This record gives sequence, C-alpha cells and structure tokens, in this order.
Amino acid sequence: MAMSLIADLERLLGSDRVRHHPLDLAVFAKDAGVVSGHVIAAVLPDTTQEVAAVVRLANQYDTPIVPRGAGTGLAGGAVPVRPGLLVVLTRLASIGEVDTVGRSVWVGPGVVNLDLSRKMKPYGLHFAPDPSSQQACTIGGNVGTNAGGPHCLADGTTVAHIYAAELVTPTGEVVIVGGDAPDTPGLDLRAVVVGSEGTLGIVTRVLVRLMQDPPDVATLLIGFPSVESAATTVSDVIASGLIPAALEMMDKRMVEAVENFVHAGYPLDAEAVLLAEVTGTPASVRSDTQRISAIAQDNRAIDVRVAVDIDERELLWKGRKSAFGAVAQAAPDYYLHDTVVPRTRLVEVMERIYEIADRYGLTMMNVFHAGDGNLHPLVAFDAKEPGALGRVQAAAREMVLVSIEAGGSLSGEHGIGVEKRDLMPLVFSAADLDAQARIKEAFDPDGLMNPDKVLPKGSRCFDASGGPL
Amino acid sequence: MAMSLIADLERLLGSDRVRHHPLDLAVFAKDAGVVSGHVIAAVLPDTTQEVAAVVRLANQYDTPIVPRGAGTGLAGGAVPVRPGLLVVLTRLASIGEVDTVGRSVWVGPGVVNLDLSRKMKPYGLHFAPDPSSQQACTIGGNVGTNAGGPHCLADGTTVAHIYAAELVTPTGEVVIVGGDAPDTPGLDLRAVVVGSEGTLGIVTRVLVRLMQDPPDVATLLIGFPSVESAATTVSDVIASGLIPAALEMMDKRMVEAVENFVHAGYPLDAEAVLLAEVTGTPASVRSDTQRISAIAQDNRAIDVRVAVDIDERELLWKGRKSAFGAVAQAAPDYYLHDTVVPRTRLVEVMERIYEIADRYGLTMMNVFHAGDGNLHPLVAFDAKEPGALGRVQAAAREMVLVSIEAGGSLSGEHGIGVEKRDLMPLVFSAADLDAQARIKEAFDPDGLMNPDKVLPKGSRCFDASGGPL
Repeated sequence: MAMSLIADLERLLGSDRVRHHPLDLAVFAKDAGVVSGHVIAAVLPDTTQEVAAVVRLANQYDTPIVPRGAGTGLAGGAVPVRPGLLVVLTRLASIGEVDTVGRSVWVGPGVVNLDLSRKMKPYGLHFAPDPSSQQACTIGGNVGTNAGGPHCLADGTTVAHIYAAELVTPTGEVVIVGGDAPDTPGLDLRAVVVGSEGTLGIVTRVLVRLMQDPPDVATLLIGFPSVESAATTVSDVIASGLIPAALEMMDKRMVEAVENFVHAGYPLDAEAVLLAEVTGTPASVRSDTQRISAIAQDNRAIDVRVAVDIDERELLWKGRKSAFGAVAQAAPDYYLHDTVVPRTRLVEVMERIYEIADRYGLTMMNVFHAGDGNLHPLVAFDAKEPGALGRVQAAAREMVLVSIEAGGSLSGEHGIGVEKRDLMPLVFSAADLDAQARIKEAFDPDGLMNPDKVLPKGSRCFDASGGPL
Repeated sequence: MAMSLIADLERLLGSDRVRHHPLDLAVFAKDAGVVSGHVIAAVLPDTTQEVAAVVRLANQYDTPIVPRGAGTGLAGGAVPVRPGLLVVLTRLASIGEVDTVGRSVWVGPGVVNLDLSRKMKPYGLHFAPDPSSQQACTIGGNVGTNAGGPHCLADGTTVAHIYAAELVTPTGEVVIVGGDAPDTPGLDLRAVVVGSEGTLGIVTRVLVRLMQDPPDVATLLIGFPSVESAATTVSDVIASGLIPAALEMMDKRMVEAVENFVHAGYPLDAEAVLLAEVTGTPASVRSDTQRISAIAQDNRAIDVRVAVDIDERELLWKGRKSAFGAVAQAAPDYYLHDTVVPRTRLVEVMERIYEIADRYGLTMMNVFHAGDGNLHPLVAFDAKEPGALGRVQAAAREMVLVSIEAGGSLSGEHGIGVEKRDLMPLVFSAADLDAQARIKEAFDPDGLMNPDKVLPKGSRCFDASGGPL
C-alpha cells in the first residue's frame, strides 16, 4: 500500500519532490526535540493545490498526514507517531505584495521568520514574533505552535500577528479562516487554527500583521547580586506601568556559557542578568531607560549598561540569542524546557527547579522571558551516556509539575506535540478535553491529520484517532 | 409543552425568576435593534449550576435557548427567532478577588462594563473595551459580540482582554476554555467562544485581563475644514509610528447634534472633528501631543484644543459618548450601522455613504472609530412613518455592500446576529461557512443554542438548525 501511495504521489509531484530514500526518512523522522517517528515518505509541494491533492491522496490510502516546516520544533509536533506521510512546506515560501497602509502581507508557510522581517525592513516594518530559532524556523511552524519570543511581552504571541490563514482541511478542501479587518464576523476559526500544531489542517498561506519599526530603541543589560533582586526588578518595572518591548533573564551559569561563546561583555560577577529593551520616540525611550535603571538600582543592581549604538545593541542581543548554541559547547545534547509560572512565584519555582536538577545530577542553566513568566530551564547532557535521557525526562516531568502546582501552565510557546500530550489532564478537565476533541473531530472526522498529538488518547468517548480508548 | 416547561423551570428557580407575563415577554422580545422575536419565557438564574440545569431542561423539551445580557445589542443576537427560552444573565454579577500582580479578575457575565472599571479604580486598573453602551451593557454581551470601543485601537477588542471563560455547553456541561497564562496549551477555544454571540454555549464566568491606568493622559479635540483633511491626519498619525489610545471622528452634522445636546465646546465651523487621546508617562504624553498637533496643522486643522484637566477631558469625551443620545433629539428612532473599511478608502466610502443616504432621503450623521476604519453611520428616522424602516434597511444594505466592495468587512463590533446573517456569503465562501458550521455542530449537535444566528441557513449540507436547507 505504501508503495502504491508513493507511486501516486510521484505521478502528482514528480519523483524529486517525493522523498523516501532511507537517509531522507531518517532525517525527517525527528524534529529538534528528542522523539523519533516513522515517515513513509516526505513530499515537498509547491502550491496550495498540490497540498490539497496530496491530502486527498493520503485520504484515499487512509494514511496519516503530518505537516512540517523547518523541523526546529522541540515537542515532536512534526514527528509522525504512527507511520505517516510528511508534508514539508518549505517550498511554499512566496511573499506577496506588501500593504504598507494596512500593514500586512500574504506569505507562504515556508518563509523563514527572520527572512520575513529582513524583507520588510525597506518598508520600515517587521513581523513581531521572534523565537530564538528565528534564523531557521518558518512562519508555518510559528503559526502551528503559536510561537513567542522575547518581543512577545509587549506585542503578544503569533496569534496576535495573523489576520487570516488559508487552510487545506483534513479532507482536502481549501478554506480561508479570519479576514483582513480587526474584528472578523462569524466564528473566529483563525485563533483555533493558530496553535493547533497542524492537527486541524495544513496552513498554506497566511496574512501576517506587520508592525512598524520603532523610531528609537534602547537596550539595557543589568547585572544583579541575586536571582531574587532581578525577579523583583521585573515585577517592579511592570508594576510601574511600563511594558518594555522585551525583558529577558539569564542566570549565572547561562551568562558564563554565553560569555565564553560570544564575548558580549556580560557581567560575570552577577548572579542574574536582565536584558531589557524599550522602544518609542526618542523622548519616551530616554525616560523609560532612566526609569528602568532607577528601579534596578533600588533593587541593588551591581551593573547597568545601556547600549549606545546599533552595534552594541546587537552584541547584547547576540548573547541572548546564542544561548542555545553556547550550551552545545558544554555537552552534545540539550533538553530545553518550556513552562509558565505567575510572575509572583518566579523565584520560588526557580529554586525548586534548581533543586530538581541537582537531585538528578543534571547541569542546568536558565534563560527565559521573565516579563511573562515563561521559564526555559536548559539541561545539557550526553544522550550516549546510558540512562541520561531517562533522567532528563524524569526531571522534566517534575519541573512541569512544580510549575503547574504554582498556578502555571504546561507550555509557554513550544507546544504540546507528543512531548506533553499525556500531561494535558493536569491542566484540563475531562469535559474541557472533550470540548477540544469535538473541535478536532469537526475538522478531521477520520482522524488522519497529525494524529496522536496535543490531545491525549481518550479525550473523546469516541476517539477520533481510531485507536483503542 | 410550553406550560409544562415553565412549570419545571418554576420548580427549579422559583416563580419570581421565571418571567412569562405578556408584558415581560414583550419587553424581552427585542434588543436595542429593530428586530423582534418570540420569547416563551425569560429565566434569571443566579449560578452556573442553575444555568446548566436550565439548559438541560430546555434540551428535554427540545426548546431553543437564547442567552441575553442587558439587551443593548443592535443586531438581534439576543432575540429568539423561533419561539425560545431567554436566559437572562444579569444576576450573575459577582466580581472575584482581584489578582493585582497577574492583573486579572473572575467576573460574572452580568457585571456592567463601566461598573467593572469603576470597581477596579482603587487598584489603578481598568477593563479596556469601552463600547458606547458601556454604562448599560454587560461583560457577557461584550464577550458574545467581541465588543470594541474607542480605546480598542491601541488595546484590541474584547478577545484580547479575556483570558478564560466558564461555559455551559449546549448540552448542559460546564467547561473552562482558555487559561490564566499568556499562551494556553491545546486548542484555543477561548477565541472561538468570544464573538460567537451565544451560539456555542452560555458564558457564566470570565477571567478578564485588567490594564493599568496610564500615569498620564491628554485628550485633543481638533477641527478640520473637510472630512478629507481629518482622514489624512488619521493616516499620517498612524504612519508616523504613533498609535494613540483613541482616535475618533465625527462629521459636521454629528458635531452639531452633540453640541446642542451637551455643550462640550465642539467647533461648529468644522466639517469634521477628531478626538484623539494619548497615554503614557508625562514626557511621552507631552511629545505625542505635540506630534499630533503638528500633523493636524500640516493638514490645515482650523482648531486644536488640548484638554488641560480631568474635567475638560471628561467634557470632550461626553460629547463623543453622548452621540447616540443626541440623535434621539432629532427623531424618535435610529439605525446605527457598523462596517469596516481599509483606512485608505475612508474618504471615498464616506462620500458614497452620504450619497446613498441622500438618495433614500435619510438624515444621516457619522461618528466612528477612524483609527481602525470602523464606520458608524447613524440614521435618524421615525418608524411610525409608513415605509421608513424599509427605506432605512434598503440603504443599510447598500452601505454594507459599498464597504465590502472597498475591501472592508460586514461588521466592526456589533456582531452578525439576525441582522447580517444573510450577508455572510458576501465575505465567506461556501467552504468557509461549512467549516464554521461544523464547529457550531461540534458544540451544539442538536442546534438548540441560539439557533438561526450568525451563520446563514444552509451553511452545512446537513443544517444543524433543524430547518429545511
């Protein structure tokens, strides 16, 4: 059956856009996380119509379909759990005509996040979500996971930056969800599609909101004698009525790893470092900078540095954005956590997370979106060491539990995928999950579109995934 | 059957909370719009559990259910088209403990919009959506219609201000959609429930986002020699990188009506008036005020007035917020339109709308959210005059068509309800409507929850409303 599906796909797309060489299948079997899957073939369509035709073919063969962008996801969202057809969307990478007044543009899901902002630069516009993977990840993946990034504190996550999406439904129809007005009439399917991790269909085009580049920007790097004084500064800044464009925290171990790697001049004597960015008119940037500096000094900051030009600003950001690369120096593998806790509980949860890492004998560093309480503890390890991955995963589970106990959430921006699917009942009741499963079923009655993801098995009395309850 | 349903309801709630006196039924048969419906009984539950019990009873009797707040809606969303049970939620008006750090609070749907912000004042917080009806309309109605208001230009409509909602589903289960974290895992049912006009269930509690009161505010009233110079100023202000907290426009006729009514000192020699508000730190408010004044002067403003204290600011806003009251002086009835057009097409669409009103012999005034292109042409008329309502409705349809032709949308913030249901195919394809109808069906398999609203009949091959295709 697989061979005849492949033959049909080759007739549709030509053989060079249907990959099923064992090497290809091995490469496509994983995303950037730790879970591996089973790919029957990976196809690379060029157009919406080809995607729809591929979906209809897969339907005929009763074969699961899994959409994939650049594969930078960490939660296994683009990994086929049951043998499935991978629809790789990197070739749908066109950028339409820019509406400079309405500030929007239609783009393909294969456009790389940073490329989009670079191409919008001449218009003085940019796409706000800026995940750490932005040099590689695609807009389609950003839409699938409702991606965040440092600048989502003030601007909101991806869902706030997608006006409309063209979607190939699980049965192969093409529909538009959302619209180009601020408040679309009818049911807002746009928001349920964004963040659904490819379980409701394949997004083949999105109308993205572009934001104006700010007239002025300042970046502050502030060193603190303790994690607590840094966390209090975060709360005090936000309580003062100021929402900085970004407000990032790194702990001492992360600062050391980063400083060894990029030499950005991060203070090595600090227990925690805050990277804050303010944007606006020159006058407001000046006054906001002074205000944040004053609050930091009230909280015993040992070092306040304001980047004076674009080169220094980029150097400071390079430190933050290279965090994951820096860790690669310490160990061959890493596991990046993603939980959210109320800002009030930051210090307490971080202490418990350090304690968990110590108990499992793991090297952990912290870099995170402090402004919105989105923690990213990062564990460096060697997967070839027997039992290492097991310890990392057991510790991960404890860290998630600690965050949820503190009133937090399962995931800030990486998604649920396979990784956290079985933890969903920790934050949702049976009735809540049933409501979500009914939506999945309404879009995907046969359960072939990225099955076994997000919602745990048995969310619905009749399990749409076709598996046993 | 109706009598035995009423008897069961009275056993459940007591007879004083089940209204079926002919006078009650007449009052509850309409909202603030022009469409009238058929109410079997209106019930006033006190708790979520009572709402769920009412829904289950209505299910037993196969009776349509229509949720209602204060009844200030204009599109007939709370009007039962087929004989139905009205669930009036004004008694679910509790306000929970305020989370001053997370800046949120659980409130009942019956809380009046302005009351919520008043009660949050001591905390220095407020609820951002501020529809013109805010003295009377309820949070539940704001959620149902995804309400806007002058301050939604910078802050977004209601969907951006609801973190989570408790929902009684059409089958009487209680579920929570959304969560208290910035990015809730799983399918984002919160956003599909917000704006669904009570067609997916009854919202019995919402976790609202509270925003900090700005440290400083300035309000500008600017008179222009033409609608065009006012509209160009709006575009120029936004193109300059500034997003004012509000940016409202009124035409000459509306200014005259308002000025006769509240004597706010609006300039009577202007062809159009802009009301702009900027918020922030004192320094940024000062510089933003100067910037807007300069742009207005470049566009030949004839009068720029900056409110110097809170009394003057409130007087200027009183003019804007009394617009609809002012019109009541001119004629006994009014019809308030609600369409959205791209900002670039504002002047052209307004000219065509004036032309349509003239052709039908209607007195029209304009007051609208200029910043986001949300037009509110307002027609004053006397419904007792034979044929008047018919002319008003024919003109309304033409105005909507003109807006859509210009690349706009059906509705900015009032909702679709009954009023615009049949116009939905103008902006959605058959496949788009089918996708929305499938979601409706997933929530409401028996089609009893606010049926005959939003989606036109025949959106689904199998029509969930139970009516013929």
